[in-house]
This record gives sequence, structure tokens and C-alpha cells, in this order.
Amino acid sequence: MVRQEILPVKGTRDFEPETQILRKKVFEKIEKVFRKYGFVPFETPLVERWSLLKGKYGKEAEKKLVWRFKVPFSKEEYCLRYDLTVPLARFYSRFQPPLPFKVYRIERVFRYDEPQKARYREFWQADFDIVGSDSFLADAEILNVAIDVFKEFGFSDFEVRINDRRILFGIFRRFGIKDEKTIFEIFRIVDKIDKIGKEGVLKELEKIRIEKKLKEKIKDFLTQAENSSFESLEKFEDIEEVKKVKENLENIISLVKDKQKIKFDLWLVRGLDYYTGMIFEVVVKKPKIGSLAGGGRYDELIGSLINKKIPAVGGSIGVERLIDAALELGILNKDQKTYAKVGIILLKGVKPQEAFEIAEKLRENGIEVWSGLKEYKNVVDGIKDLEKRGIDYALIIGKKELETKKFTIQNLKTRERKELTLEEILTVLKNERNL
Amino acid sequence: MVRQEILPVKGTRDFEPETQILRKKVFEKIEKVFRKYGFVPFETPLVERWSLLKGKYGKEAEKKLVWRFKVPFSKEEYCLRYDLTVPLARFYSRFQPPLPFKVYRIERVFRYDEPQKARYREFWQADFDIVGSDSFLADAEILNVAIDVFKEFGFSDFEVRINDRRILFGIFRRFGIKDEKTIFEIFRIVDKIDKIGKEGVLKELEKIRIEKKLKEKIKDFLTQAENSSFESLEKFEDIEEVKKVKENLENIISLVKDKQKIKFDLWLVRGLDYYTGMIFEVVVKKPKIGSLAGGGRYDELIGSLINKKIPAVGGSIGVERLIDAALELGILNKDQKTYAKVGIILLKGVKPQEAFEIAEKLRENGIEVWSGLKEYKNVVDGIKDLEKRGIDYALIIGKKELETKKFTIQNLKTRERKELTLEEILTVLKNERNL
Repeated sequence: MVRQEILPVKGTRDFEPETQILRKKVFEKIEKVFRKYGFVPFETPLVERWSLLKGKYGKEAEKKLVWRFKVPFSKEEYCLRYDLTVPLARFYSRFQPPLPFKVYRIERVFRYDEPQKARYREFWQADFDIVGSDSFLADAEILNVAIDVFKEFGFSDFEVRINDRRILFGIFRRFGIKDEKTIFEIFRIVDKIDKIGKEGVLKELEKIRIEKKLKEKIKDFLTQAENSSFESLEKFEDIEEVKKVKENLENIISLVKDKQKIKFDLWLVRGLDYYTGMIFEVVVKKPKIGSLAGGGRYDELIGSLINKKIPAVGGSIGVERLIDAALELGILNKDQKTYAKVGIILLKGVKPQEAFEIAEKLRENGIEVWSGLKEYKNVVDGIKDLEKRGIDYALIIGKKELETKKFTIQNLKTRERKELTLEEILTVLKNERNL
Repeated sequence: MVRQEILPVKGTRDFEPETQILRKKVFEKIEKVFRKYGFVPFETPLVERWSLLKGKYGKEAEKKLVWRFKVPFSKEEYCLRYDLTVPLARFYSRFQPPLPFKVYRIERVFRYDEPQKARYREFWQADFDIVGSDSFLADAEILNVAIDVFKEFGFSDFEVRINDRRILFGIFRRFGIKDEKTIFEIFRIVDKIDKIGKEGVLKELEKIRIEKKLKEKIKDFLTQAENSSFESLEKFEDIEEVKKVKENLENIISLVKDKQKIKFDLWLVRGLDYYTGMIFEVVVKKPKIGSLAGGGRYDELIGSLINKKIPAVGGSIGVERLIDAALELGILNKDQKTYAKVGIILLKGVKPQEAFEIAEKLRENGIEVWSGLKEYKNVVDGIKDLEKRGIDYALIIGKKELETKKFTIQNLKTRERKELTLEEILTVLKNERNL
């Protein structure tokens, strides 16, 4: 079989044990924060009906990005979930639990994107949502959760960009653009600012089919609003909507625990069309890797399947980018290769029963024990094997050891070794003190 | 939208929070056992190439059971993984880590089966495998892990059926059946014994195209071997293979921690064709639900992609059946609805900032705090809400409380309530003692 055949499908990944151990730690850490805020987990299948996803993510996504398919023996059109939010809408509609329904999950999603750095066809999102609250307290709690996650990992140099597209809506309408479609077109261009830069955005705005005068007005405004602050909105505060939305954002920010992390960013529009209020993104200054988390208020989506108005606000942490950034900053590493505390080096002439009994005794006392399930030629060979596997302690079991009931235990980091009884070894491994 | 649209795809399931909390606990418990034996986690994508799975699971599975598909914008033929073992073979072939490679994972697999009780199209398997050891010590460790998992959950009345198909091979060959295909055909019939009973098996054996005399011989033998024990093999011990295999099984059993749980079962053949040595299944006597776990030695599969001989032995725990059985036996329950220790009841007239600060203080001290993010009309309403959510403590924050700096905390189980300072409340929640 050719090499290609043993690789994972394009855009997907295998995770070796040291990576998987790290990922599990990351998931646990994020989950700990979600639980601290009283969010509960739930789950939905990986496969959904195409009819559920259709119309939710825009035409381009549907044409190129949704993993959509039929199986040979069924007529049903399926797809792999594209995000965790539309399945949440279905889930909510089905069970209609008491509100607010505060939920989380850390799970796979699938997008048939062209693979590139930090962009995969199968990746993980950590979503946290508050369904059924239209209060700004919910928006603030979502921001606090996001901030807590990044603090928990030890990120210090990050910022939370926040905006509400209704501000731009209000201003663009004032300029004279009545057509919602055109405004969304502008949003989509502005959304590319991280990729194509300010110049690129201004250039692309040229292509929009609106009056030249209007175009200039928008370009001027966006140029001025580059270093956007609430103050820059003052001249638009006679627009009722702008004033209300600005006040709402100020209320939200007043409840955020680290106000200095928050930065109002008029240019922030985010890709998905379903946001209806506050939106945010978390960005680290280094490394340059795009946003690590994002979200916002989406009051129309959750109830849409059952014709109810169910407000909601939520966030999503891009697990892969968070890990990449944290590895690059050195606040995470792949040092841990195993959960085993001690490895058994079985020497020639020992009865397997005796070795199994010793391992069993340790395991009964809560110690993780690795065994190669074979005799080693000599101690050196055994130690080399354990070191390769990242195991810190070696327990040597030979014929002599079984007779004297004293076993050699060696700390493979300090190289210190001692001959001890099994009881004493238990004490060492439990406290990691004496060796 | 019709009701149908908000249901999950046929054969798949949504998990509500109380179920998901239980499932997470179950996964953690199983994982704890795997780690105790020094197994490490790894992961592969959900989607694999069809060319990888093809030819691995038999014709019937390929024709009807593998979720196999193309997406509209690509020529590649994909499938959703059918088990965790074939992807492990690909993973091993790609990385070729040091042996023995002892790995685990608890993950989804997909089979397009006709849904029925305890049979789903998307379900979870907890796999544990030792790759690269041909020693009977590895077989024994796999059995010990399986036994430990069931003991960890508190199952007492279970048994581990064990066999090696080479025994039947040897005996059938002695009877005069030279054709491997015919022997596998007999295996497939014998495998149905749990479903169609002994009578059914004997009836189906009639259909096999072999001499009538031979048929009678096999039927006689299988009838006699019903209460199979090692002793019943005595008359076949002149067959070299039977003798060797029997000794190997005895060696394995000698290393098992709970020998009385092991039962030799000549009728056990298991479905998958890739087993080459010891096979096993874990069965509980009640409820009648089929086997909860199974596995065996498969020395040909792992290295087949790279034309190497890599021995392997492993097991797989059927997570859904384990949970169903444990719920029915009452050794698991869905009592836990939340991770939140305390819920905040916010009364009218309180500034949100003040409530947020109090919640924050508790969270900083490691307490999980739920908040409805709204004012309750009165305390009774708040308490009802928290009870519905399974939260044990209520912290009442009203105007008076903020003035006196004494807050009411109520244990919703015992109904006891006290007025305490925030510091005192912290002590109560951390120790769960005084209230």
C-alpha cells in the first residue's frame, strides 16, 4: 500500500499520545471554567439532516463548505455539522428546557475548507451559550466566561474586541443606504480587514454598486473610525438606534471583570449573518494567528424552527488556535507523554504471576503502573524503554528481589535509586517525596 | 416546520444535560481504569477513506452498514469510521511508535444498522489495545482491564466468556472439513446462539452444504459441548493445535485477577473475522442485554497496511449497553442535573454589579455558581427555579442583604437557612458541613 493510504483524509489530523494528553488537559481546563459559571453539557449527533442546515450559513458555505452527502442505501440527505449552534437550535426546539438554558460543549465540527495553517476540515469548537435571556447581564456573563478561559491558560496579552453591527446599520442608513443586502455586502468586505488590511478593504468597497458620493462617505467614515472609540460615535448619537446600542454596550462592559481587556471596535462585523446584537472576538497580540474566540447575540436563530422568539447569546473558543498560540507562547507544552507513574522492569526468571501481583497491589492503591509485558535483557534496556515513554519511576523486579522482598525503585529524573519493600515503595510513589 | 425536523437523524440521539453529565462520569470512570494500566490516549479523524475500510468488515457490512459517501464538490470516497480498530491500524502504520504501544480511546463510531433497543447508528466504543506484544501476558492484561472496568462500576454478577477459535478449527478439521470458508460459515451460525438459541443454531447448520455425516458429527459435538469446560476438550488433546491453544488459554487465565469470573465457552466465536487467538466477551446475568464488552487477539490486522507482522490484542466496551445495564441495576442514576453548587436569587432593586461581584468572589474560590441573570419576583419563585435545575444551595441577594452584608443561604434539601457573611458562606459551600 502506498504511503498516502496511511495518512488521514486531507484537512483532518491524527493526534499522537502526547498531543492527545495535552488536548485533554486543554478541554478539561476550558470545561472547568464553563462549569464554574453553572453551564451544563449536552450533546447532539455529528450527522444532521441537510434540510436543517440549509439556508443557515450563506450561499458560499453551502456551495463549497458543508460536508453534505447521501449514503448509497438511503435517500436521506445528510451532512456533518458545520457548527454547534444550529444543532443547539434543533435541540432547544425539541426539548424546550427551562430558561435561561446555559449550556456548553467541546466538540468536532466539519468544514470543507481549503486546508492551511490553523484551518482544518475537522476541528473542535468549545461553545458556551445562554439561551432565553435578553438581558445585558447575559451578554456580560458570556464575555466574563471568555475572559476567564484565557486567564485560566495564563494568556496575559489578549484583548476582547466588541461591537454591535446595529451601529454601522444606523450610520449607513443615515448615509442613505436603505438596502439591507448592500449593508451586509459592506460587512463582508470589512470582515476581511485582518486578511487584506485597511487598504484592501477600501479597494474592495470600490466594487460595490452604489452612488460614488455614498461610497466616498463610507470610505471617509471607515478611515476616520480606524481607532474607534465610543467617543468617535458622538456625532451619530442623534440617531436613536446608535444611542441605544451604545448605551447597551456600555452597560455590558460595566459588568465585565477586566474592563481594560475590552476594546470597542467599530470595524468588527464577524462573518455569520445571524448576529443581532453585541458581537465580540478575542485576539492575542502575539502570535499573529487571527481571533481565538468569538461570539455574540443571536436572537432570531434558536426559536426559528418553532416560530418562537428565543433570545440567545453565546461564544465559541477555537480550540486549535488557542493551543497553537499557547504552545508558541510557551504557556502550554507537550511534555507529558503518559499518565503512568511507574514502569515495571521485569527481569529474566521471574514468574509472570509474581510481577502481576506486584503491579496489581500498586494499582489497587491508586498508582498508574505501566508494564512492557515482557522480560528485559537487562536493567539498562528497561530504563531506556521507560525513559522513551516519559515514565518517571522504574520498579525493577528480578529473582533476587522476589526472594528478599526488597525491590529497586529508581527515579529516572534524579537517577537516585533505593531498595525498598513494597509498602515503602507505595509511600514513595504516593508522596513523591523520598526519592 | 414539522415535528420530524427537530428530531435527530434516525438511529442517532440527543443527550440532555442530566444524561450527558452521567455519560461524562462513565467515560471518566472507564478512562481512570485505562490510565491505571498505563494506557495512553490518541485520536484519529471521524472521516476515513473508503479505500481504507474496504475489505475489512465482510461483504454484508460493506453493502449495508458502512456510512460511505462522496461530497458534491469532491471525487474522493469517504466514510465514517465503522470501528476504532482499523483507524488504529492506519495510525500505527503511520507513526510506528515503540512497542508495545498501549492505547485507549472512548469515541463515536457509525453503523447504518436498523435501529432497535440498544442499537444505534451513532454510538460510542471504549477501546483499549496492546499493539506489538505476542505474549500471553498481554492477553491477560486486556482481560484484567475489562474486569476492572466492570468492578469499578460496581457490577458484581458478570462473567467473562473466553475461547480461541483455533480449538474449533482443529476439531472441525479433524472431522474432515478442510475448507476454511465452511468453517467460518459455521462460526457465523454459532455466533447467533444468543439470538436464535441452540435449536436455531442446529437448524441453520442443516443448510450448510457438506456431507450429511459430517453435519451430524458437528451437531453432535456442539450439543455435547454445550456446558463446555476445558475437561470436555480432553478427547481432542491429541490434536497438537488444540492442546497448544488450550495451554495458552490456561496460561492467560492463571494471570487473571478474578479467575472465578472467567468461563471457558467453546460456543463463543464472535463476529469479526480478524481474530487470530484468544477471544472474550463480558456478559452480565441481569439484565438480558447481550455482551457489554468483547475483544481478543488479532495478529494480522495492525501491520497489514505496511506488510509487517504486528501482533495485537485488545478489547472494546460497549458504552451504551454498559450504561443501560447499570441504570437498570441501579448502580448508576441520572440524579445529577448540574455542576453548580449554588444558585443566585437576585431580588428587585439590586444593582447587577453587586450581584456579579458576589458571584465572582465565590467563583474565585472554586465554587460553581449559577445565576439566572434576572431579578426574581420573590424568593419562592427563585427557589422553585433552582430546585428544578437540581441546585442544592440558594444564595439570596436583596437590597437589605447588601446593606447588612449578611446574605441568606439556604440548603434546598434540608430547607435549613442562615444569614451569614460572604466569608462564612464560602466556608459553608467549601465544606458543606454547617448547613
